[in-house]
Amino acid sequence: MRERHFEDWIVGERLETGSIEITREKALAFAREYDPQAFHLDDGAAAASMFGRLAISGWQTAAYAMRLIVESGMFPAHGGVGLGIDELRWLKPVYPGDVLRVTAECAAKRASAGKPSGIVRFKIETCNGDGALVMSHTAIVLVPRRAPEAA
Amino acid sequence: MRERHFEDWIVGERLETGSIEITREKALAFAREYDPQAFHLDDGAAAASMFGRLAISGWQTAAYAMRLIVESGMFPAHGGVGLGIDELRWLKPVYPGDVLRVTAECAAKRASAGKPSGIVRFKIETCNGDGALVMSHTAIVLVPRRAPEAA
Repeated sequence: MRERHFEDWIVGERLETGSIEITREKALAFAREYDPQAFHLDDGAAAASMFGRLAISGWQTAAYAMRLIVESGMFPAHGGVGLGIDELRWLKPVYPGDVLRVTAECAAKRASAGKPSGIVRFKIETCNGDGALVMSHTAIVLVPRRAPEAA
Repeated sequence: MRERHFEDWIVGERLETGSIEITREKALAFAREYDPQAFHLDDGAAAASMFGRLAISGWQTAAYAMRLIVESGMFPAHGGVGLGIDELRWLKPVYPGDVLRVTAECAAKRASAGKPSGIVRFKIETCNGDGALVMSHTAIVLVPRRAPEAA
């Protein structure tokens, strides 16, 4: 996908990213550093939890969704700056070995006169390898316009 | 802080976590794996960006807020399960070397009859070492009740 600037987004447009597999090693490394709860770290504790087996942190699902979006080239090389997130919901557990993929829909955009960026609201859906929706959220992103020379 | 179950939370109550310093090494490792945008990875690109210098990913700020909450013992050992996040806002950049600290206010709670957990909404504020608010969000968490034997 070519890099997209603010001007390129059409409200209602949907784009799909590539995919990534979450390994057990990465799941444990993330949990140790960022979310050291027993059901993210220990197989026995996870088996006794509502997850039934080792589940990855919801924050890691969100972080990998960000990576898929960045790698897709949805934002220009000089970046999309996140202003906020609305209505994030973790809908199903994600487990090591699951493969994640993201679709992003441009839900709204707003230019700011004289500013080098505009604000885009994206509806983001993250699915596992079975196509089941595991996480949904709305991302509010400052997306650069094209350089004036190129406009 | 002792571990808290659903029954222990009082609406309006605020608790403060410990603190953590975000090192440059951890900032770069996170950005490489989860948010490989130039202003999170490259000093030169960051200097030319709106951040002015290398800034950490907002998702890493959120992940460290989670760690501080887990380490504080705010949730029981068998865990608080995140259902979702509302109105997350990244209000100020966070830079390597910044020290983060979190306050969590119990904004609302709702028991579910016959369920082993209840739902608590926490207003979470994450501040830097100067006490400036860098991120705010509302976390919706399934918090276990005490075991019936102990009730």
